[in-house]
Amino acid sequence: MSKKSIRIAIDCMGGDHGLSITVPAAKQFAQQHPDTLCLLVGDEAAIRAQLNQEGAASGDWYEIVHASETVCMDDPVEVALRRKKDSSMRIAAQAVKDERAHACVSAGNTGAWMAITRYVLKTLDGIDRPAIATSIPNQKGGATTVLDLGANVDCTAEHLLQFALLGSALVHTVDGKDRPTVGLLNIGEEIIKGNEVVKQAAELLRASGLNFYGNVEGDDICKGSVDVVVCDGFVGNVVLKSMEGLAKMVAKMLREEFTRNALTMTAALVAKPVLNRLSDRFDNRRYNGAALLGLRGIVIKSHGSADAYAFGYALQRARFAVKNGLLEGTTQYIEHLRQSFAQADVHSPLSSTSNGDTLSA
Amino acid sequence: MSKKSIRIAIDCMGGDHGLSITVPAAKQFAQQHPDTLCLLVGDEAAIRAQLNQEGAASGDWYEIVHASETVCMDDPVEVALRRKKDSSMRIAAQAVKDERAHACVSAGNTGAWMAITRYVLKTLDGIDRPAIATSIPNQKGGATTVLDLGANVDCTAEHLLQFALLGSALVHTVDGKDRPTVGLLNIGEEIIKGNEVVKQAAELLRASGLNFYGNVEGDDICKGSVDVVVCDGFVGNVVLKSMEGLAKMVAKMLREEFTRNALTMTAALVAKPVLNRLSDRFDNRRYNGAALLGLRGIVIKSHGSADAYAFGYALQRARFAVKNGLLEGTTQYIEHLRQSFAQADVHSPLSSTSNGDTLSA
Repeated sequence: MSKKSIRIAIDCMGGDHGLSITVPAAKQFAQQHPDTLCLLVGDEAAIRAQLNQEGAASGDWYEIVHASETVCMDDPVEVALRRKKDSSMRIAAQAVKDERAHACVSAGNTGAWMAITRYVLKTLDGIDRPAIATSIPNQKGGATTVLDLGANVDCTAEHLLQFALLGSALVHTVDGKDRPTVGLLNIGEEIIKGNEVVKQAAELLRASGLNFYGNVEGDDICKGSVDVVVCDGFVGNVVLKSMEGLAKMVAKMLREEFTRNALTMTAALVAKPVLNRLSDRFDNRRYNGAALLGLRGIVIKSHGSADAYAFGYALQRARFAVKNGLLEGTTQYIEHLRQSFAQADVHSPLSSTSNGDTLSA
Repeated sequence: MSKKSIRIAIDCMGGDHGLSITVPAAKQFAQQHPDTLCLLVGDEAAIRAQLNQEGAASGDWYEIVHASETVCMDDPVEVALRRKKDSSMRIAAQAVKDERAHACVSAGNTGAWMAITRYVLKTLDGIDRPAIATSIPNQKGGATTVLDLGANVDCTAEHLLQFALLGSALVHTVDGKDRPTVGLLNIGEEIIKGNEVVKQAAELLRASGLNFYGNVEGDDICKGSVDVVVCDGFVGNVVLKSMEGLAKMVAKMLREEFTRNALTMTAALVAKPVLNRLSDRFDNRRYNGAALLGLRGIVIKSHGSADAYAFGYALQRARFAVKNGLLEGTTQYIEHLRQSFAQADVHSPLSSTSNGDTLSA
């Protein structure tokens, strides 16, 4: 095995573009980070061909791990999990399980990647379900971590508490924030005070020892009122996609207005440096790489449509999580919370065992 | 009573700014629409003083309807409903109930306005709960009607169907679209297929005779994939506020980037006409005025922070709904749906009677 200190398993076959994106992204990433070994997982011959095409076949930056199958973007979860036991996703997750890699990354089918990593790696003790977390840029120049983004449609208060824990551990270890603030996504006090689950979750959060800020509303995400925003997966997914839709519309309107006629095109030329800076600040490729938290291993999901630049950010996120000890940090958070609830004489909302094995394959 | 054909009751005391906004907005609105009479509801002396200050005391454009109490922005719903029976909100709603006005508008406390109008006016036959609908500008240059935006936290499939009906009736009568398309807000198929309520609602929608497009995702709001997007009030509220937060952040970043230094400020000067057009397209004041649908009367809610320009749009929305027969249109839709379900031999998801009287005051 290579002596490089960080090893990342990359599903080279996943995503809308597969090898043509993942391999060059991995190569560039490895150049930037000589301490990191890339395990290129997928069809060996196809990976070799791509490496040759990139002129990247030499060097000690990679190892190829053959996988005979590929999960397609539209494969049902059942097919991915039960019929494709030698998929590049499965083998990448297995590499983490077997401690051949510290983290795994895929741009493939989200549902399949979640199911496979959960099946192979299982959840951490105390955590019922994994959650998807991502960073959304905020007005303060930082980013707000939001979870869950679609792993769990129906959540209990206990699940929301566990998401708060996972998000706090992520921001604490990866962003180095001492006591990340947590907000519970809710609707305007002036209308109604939220549903039962949210109210119960607020009570648990108050007893948890986490740095609970209280309820927040949708606009607090971009305001950056808190470090971590917690919600169920249905709400999180819809919110994220709505915001993506709006961001795309704004970009389109900017283009339309600046290309309307000769005059506006001149204005665009003059304003170009400003507009470029603006689009850099908004470039969501820099925020690519959602974390699947709560598993016994570091798992990153890249956007399916990521280009090599964006996929590189997902790889960096994986490396950063390994380097900063995300797993150890999360385990410490779980222990800390158990103690808080014991001291407060409250029944712990953390599950007593891992239950990632409820799925069978 | 005045011979003007349209009469709108305006809660002059509501909103963050009260009389100083509502009275000048009403005056300008009445000038633009000589067929419309404004019933100015609130403290008579204070309204007269404001009219004098505006030099608007003469003319047949208004009548004052005295109300001795005002619902404050932070009054609990119970206080507004049970303790302030002579509030300007209550009297404005009562004017619609008594057929002194065709519609009522308030910029006050949303929860109170909902509770009061529901108590005074009751829901339409077939409708269990009123819903809040608004228009969000979309990429196609039109607007997408989204509901519910916070009136109902926990919804059944039947409620979602009723929202689809109310939204369709709104778009049909007010925007003049023949068979508005309806989308059910859901999360990416690739992750999970939504919760039970959403699945059941989809079945009801397919049997309804409404123009059901199918599931849509968050980004379809700005894409303009459908005319009407239906969701529960928790999701709708969070989505709307998240998008508002993002829009504000974009505006702030634009300002920041263009005022960074002398060079960028020159660029801003050159680009000013373009940026102005852009900010016009984004000016959410033009979309002010959410409709409370499903009641036996036309009820509009303005943003609490609306200025006179924005409040004028809320008044126009009320007038337009009256002029286009929103109530009659909605009743026809309800009848049409009852027939569809009867023909399909499906138990009607429309309630058999109005139940707006479950609240007591």
